[in-house]
Amino acid sequence: MTAAHHDSSIRKPAMTETLPSGITVTVRVPASSANLGPGFDTLGLALGMYDEITVTTTESGLNIEVVGEGAEDVPCNPSHLVVRAIERGLEAAGVWADGLDVVCRNVIPHSRGLGSSASAAVGGLFAASELARELDPTHGLSDAQLVQLSSEFEGHPDNAAASVLGGAVVSWSSNDENTGESALAKVFRAVRLDTHPDLRACVLVPTERSSTAHTRGLLPHLVPHGDAAFNASRSALLVVALTTNPELLLPATEDMLHQPHRAPALPLTTRWVGRLRERGIAATVSGAGPTVLALGTETIPADLRSEAEHDGLRVLDLAVSGGVHRA
Amino acid sequence: MTAAHHDSSIRKPAMTETLPSGITVTVRVPASSANLGPGFDTLGLALGMYDEITVTTTESGLNIEVVGEGAEDVPCNPSHLVVRAIERGLEAAGVWADGLDVVCRNVIPHSRGLGSSASAAVGGLFAASELARELDPTHGLSDAQLVQLSSEFEGHPDNAAASVLGGAVVSWSSNDENTGESALAKVFRAVRLDTHPDLRACVLVPTERSSTAHTRGLLPHLVPHGDAAFNASRSALLVVALTTNPELLLPATEDMLHQPHRAPALPLTTRWVGRLRERGIAATVSGAGPTVLALGTETIPADLRSEAEHDGLRVLDLAVSGGVHRA
Repeated sequence: MTAAHHDSSIRKPAMTETLPSGITVTVRVPASSANLGPGFDTLGLALGMYDEITVTTTESGLNIEVVGEGAEDVPCNPSHLVVRAIERGLEAAGVWADGLDVVCRNVIPHSRGLGSSASAAVGGLFAASELARELDPTHGLSDAQLVQLSSEFEGHPDNAAASVLGGAVVSWSSNDENTGESALAKVFRAVRLDTHPDLRACVLVPTERSSTAHTRGLLPHLVPHGDAAFNASRSALLVVALTTNPELLLPATEDMLHQPHRAPALPLTTRWVGRLRERGIAATVSGAGPTVLALGTETIPADLRSEAEHDGLRVLDLAVSGGVHRA
Repeated sequence: MTAAHHDSSIRKPAMTETLPSGITVTVRVPASSANLGPGFDTLGLALGMYDEITVTTTESGLNIEVVGEGAEDVPCNPSHLVVRAIERGLEAAGVWADGLDVVCRNVIPHSRGLGSSASAAVGGLFAASELARELDPTHGLSDAQLVQLSSEFEGHPDNAAASVLGGAVVSWSSNDENTGESALAKVFRAVRLDTHPDLRACVLVPTERSSTAHTRGLLPHLVPHGDAAFNASRSALLVVALTTNPELLLPATEDMLHQPHRAPALPLTTRWVGRLRERGIAATVSGAGPTVLALGTETIPADLRSEAEHDGLRVLDLAVSGGVHRA
C-alpha cells in the first residue's frame, strides 16, 4: 500500500536546520509487553519481534509505504502514527526535512497487547533522531527524550520505555511541578533492568483483536486496600524475579488490579493464563490483552503448545530484546 | 528487672530431645524499618541497632531479666514475647529445655516503628535455633523457617524478614492451598536484596509512642485504582533504587496507600517527612510511625539535624545491617 501526500499543515519551524535530501536511515524497534501481571502501567518488557522503518529525506512531499501487519488499515496520511512521530522527533532534534519517504515493514501484530503503537511511536522518533544525527552527531535525542516523547503519544510509559531502552523496564510518571499549576505537564521516566540471562518469553497470540480503550473501561474506580497492597508487594517482587531470582516468577506475577476485572472480556486469554499458571508457568495478560505472555527459564511444554495451537493461538518463543536500534 | 517463674502450662512435647543445662547462646538482632514508603506490608530494611538476648538452659524454671528499653513495662512472665518465641523455636527445632535463663539487653525503642516486637520474636526464635544447633548441628532452623515463625508472631512479614535476613527485603504472604479450605494457613516468604553499598539510613525518633493497631485503623477499606497503580509502580522502582540506582530514592519512596491516611495522627512525623523531602531527602514514615526514616547516600545536613533535635527528635545514623546473628 502506497500513498503520496503534500500536506500544507506541516510548516518548517523557525531556528531549525534543514536536512539535505537523500539521507536514509533504517531502524528496528522491538515489540513489548506491559504490566507483566502486577506492574500495571509501570512494568514493561521488550520482546524480540521487530518492526522496521526506513526513512529517506526527499525534495518534497510525503510518501508512505506499509508492508505487513496493518497494511490494509493503517491510514496512509500524515496522521499515520509513524509519520507523526518522525515529525515530532525532527522538531525535538531541531531539524527539518522538505520531504520524506517512509517505508514501514510491520511484523508486530496490531491490537493484541504487544505494544505495536508504542513501537510505531518509538521507531518514528528514533528514525528522526538518527536522521538529525547524520547531519550533526550532537543533534540526536537522548534515551530520556525518546522515553518522554514516545510516552506522550501513548499516555503511559510502560510499552514505550521498553521499546526505547530494551530489557525490562520500570517506568513511572509524575507531574512536572516546574511548569506551574496552570499547565501541569506529565514527566515520563523509566529505568532499565538487566534481566536474568536465562529469562525467556513466550507469547500466545489470539486471532481476535482487543481494544485497550474498552478493556481499560472495565477497571473499577476503587479497589480494596488489601488488593493495592498485594500489587505493591508483587510488583516489587517481580523486579527481583526478573533480574536475579527467576524461580520466583510465579508468585511475582500475581495481580489483583487489572486481570481479574478484565477477565470477563477476555475469556480465551483468561483461560490460558490459568491453564499455564496451574502448570507452574508465570503467565499474565500482555498489556490489555488478548495476548498471553509466559515468562520463565524454560520453553513451554510441547503438550501445552499443541493445545494452545488447537485453540487458535499463535505460539511464539521470543527472546528479551534490546531497545530500538539502527538496522 | 528480674522475675522467676515455674509455668505449669509449658509441657514437654513427645518426640523431642532435651537440651542439657548450661548451654548458653547470645544473639544480636537488628531493628528494622517497614514499608519504606510505597512497600506497604512488604518492604523492610534491617537497621544497625541491636537488641541482644542471652539464653542459658537450666535445670528448671524460667528466669527473665530485661535491661534497657522496655525494662519497666515488658511483662516478666512466659507471655514475654522473647520467651514465647524461644519456646516456639525450641518446639520447631524438636528440642526441649527443662529450664531457661533469659537476659534481654534492649536498645531498640518500643512502639516507635522500628520493629522492636519483630526483633524480639526473631531473636527468641534464633536463640532457640542456636541452642538446638549446639545439641546437633542439623537441628537448627532455616532462614525460611525463621521468617515463617517470626511473621506468624507479627501477622505480617516485613519487619520480621528484615531482622532475619538483613539488608532490604521484599516479603509477601500467600494462603497455603495444601492445607485445605478449612484451615488456610498463611505462608510468609521473603527475599533479601543486596542494597547499594553507599546506602545509609538515618532515623528521627520522637519521644512519644505510637500504636500500630491505632494507625492501622486509619487506613481506608477502598482506595482509588490510580493510587493502587501508583504504589505498584513506586514499590517496583524502590527495589531498583535500593539496589542499583540510589539517585532514584526520592521518587521511589513516594506513597499513596498509607502515609497520607495516617498523617493526621502523626503531625510531627508528617511534618518531618515533608521537611526532609522538600530538601531532596527520601524520607518516609518508618513502619506505622512515629519514627521518620531517611534513606540516601549522604548524611543529613547539619542544619536539618539541629532543627530536628530542637523539635525533640533523636537523630541516629544507622548502617544497613545484616540479619540476626550470634554475638
